[in-house]
Amino acid sequence: MPIIITGAAGFVGRVLVRRLLDRGAEIVALDSSTAALADHPALRKVAGDIASPAVRAEALRDGCNALIHLATVPGGAAEADPAASRRINVDAMYDLLLDACAAAFRPRIVFASSIAALGDPLPGDGVDDTTPLAPRMVYGGHKAMMEVAVAMMHHRRGIDGVSVRLPAILARPKGPSGMKSAFLSDLFHALRSGTPFVCPVSPEATIWALSVTVAAANLEHALTVDTAAMPATRVVTLPAQRIATGTLAAEIARQCGVSSALVGYRLDAALEAAFGRLPPLATPAADRAGFTHDGDVATLVARALDAIAHD
Amino acid sequence: MPIIITGAAGFVGRVLVRRLLDRGAEIVALDSSTAALADHPALRKVAGDIASPAVRAEALRDGCNALIHLATVPGGAAEADPAASRRINVDAMYDLLLDACAAAFRPRIVFASSIAALGDPLPGDGVDDTTPLAPRMVYGGHKAMMEVAVAMMHHRRGIDGVSVRLPAILARPKGPSGMKSAFLSDLFHALRSGTPFVCPVSPEATIWALSVTVAAANLEHALTVDTAAMPATRVVTLPAQRIATGTLAAEIARQCGVSSALVGYRLDAALEAAFGRLPPLATPAADRAGFTHDGDVATLVARALDAIAHD
Repeated sequence: MPIIITGAAGFVGRVLVRRLLDRGAEIVALDSSTAALADHPALRKVAGDIASPAVRAEALRDGCNALIHLATVPGGAAEADPAASRRINVDAMYDLLLDACAAAFRPRIVFASSIAALGDPLPGDGVDDTTPLAPRMVYGGHKAMMEVAVAMMHHRRGIDGVSVRLPAILARPKGPSGMKSAFLSDLFHALRSGTPFVCPVSPEATIWALSVTVAAANLEHALTVDTAAMPATRVVTLPAQRIATGTLAAEIARQCGVSSALVGYRLDAALEAAFGRLPPLATPAADRAGFTHDGDVATLVARALDAIAHD
Repeated sequence: MPIIITGAAGFVGRVLVRRLLDRGAEIVALDSSTAALADHPALRKVAGDIASPAVRAEALRDGCNALIHLATVPGGAAEADPAASRRINVDAMYDLLLDACAAAFRPRIVFASSIAALGDPLPGDGVDDTTPLAPRMVYGGHKAMMEVAVAMMHHRRGIDGVSVRLPAILARPKGPSGMKSAFLSDLFHALRSGTPFVCPVSPEATIWALSVTVAAANLEHALTVDTAAMPATRVVTLPAQRIATGTLAAEIARQCGVSSALVGYRLDAALEAAFGRLPPLATPAADRAGFTHDGDVATLVARALDAIAHD
């Protein structure tokens, strides 16, 4: 039976599809447009709106042992259009979970949630697996609601659910992403092309980050992680490096052979508050379950630059 | 401006409406039927489906400073018809929250959630404010999802949200309630009328309980509790007494002047698992915020019997 990936033509989806095809997997790729995906004999593309029952039925046509749900109205777009976020991030996902329950016996469902579920500002002394959820953005609120739906359907034995909260993923391709944290990726593109960049958060601003390579590896791991290794909530915050923006900029500049003086700073107070105050992060549940981060800043930056070069 | 109460004609709603009218409050009572509510000059009744925008608009006609949301598809009914639970317990409530955001500046919204949000079986060594949510019943899953929605809309400053998780409330009137825990109330009715009762859980089965009197007092307290006294999740598990069914039966029999030998036991394994294994409960967040339980078993039973006599 194939692995179904929703949002497969997106930034993370494309890397994940390539990775799983390289492993010999059979993939069904569902997205609103699948034009960005290269043809492959083991890849079946389904283009359409995930809110459409017919589109979901076409994606689940050959059964559903495993599904990775990446499709989402992203954070900035959700904040601009909360009704669209409700329609896709809550209602369509709930319908998809019901469809998956009906299509197979306890399929493994991997849900790409977000650290936005935790809310902001976060407790200054640090975040761990006991930090209570206090979402403020529509995106994070809807992700947190659906983490609960995944847990409920898991405990009802309809699905075998695994939710993973993604941090900032580096580096996105150029162009609009609908993600409020996209400025982090823009920093890579600017330094790579040797052009000046005005960063909207301070050099001291701290982020949690993963390369897209390791994000995809963690999603692949979530497909096969022992169900007993997951907490009762069925959700883990993924391991991530906590990095100051200035440190990140300096390492990108070093690897690109340009001066980090290309980066200027002009603070956007809302962005600094929402994305620049991330406290120390401990992820013992994810660590125990075998999820990982890039290890060090140089490796993360090298992988992020490599992802840009190969997208 | 009036206080709006949804589900106002239900078991807890009726006690709460009487209590608030006695305080001199102006009340709008919304329910599918409001026939069970006595007329009162300060009471405006709105009968209709809470999923209807027109019905909600009629209820919010005079603004909305404060709203207590009791309306729900109850646990047993939700389990029998998950789509109805989704329609009322998730979708209609979400719409109601949006309506409330639009009708007033940060109205206080009190959401009657349930200990079912915690899931079952619960950790044997006890439950406190850090116990992760792992709902298994549709009812509890939907309540947990909407606790998150309340928290999100609170942190967005659309509402001033307070969710309270209700334990078993004693004692319900006779007749079908749609609640799986209704056997606890049936125990009161049987002993009060001196008739034998077959209890579907063991005498050692432990429950968490509040009298309907104290449940209503806690909901009233939630209307005015200092917003800073609530945790960031905006939800507290209400204080409750942990009582063995046999102890409860003996106290009811004593106060009713009948023999506790009227009670026989024939276990329903599913009920025993879902409602008879409640571990020790600590509710420090609710305690700090001024919520209370009945204090001792005799007081709880006396109040529950009084509620039956006056319903």
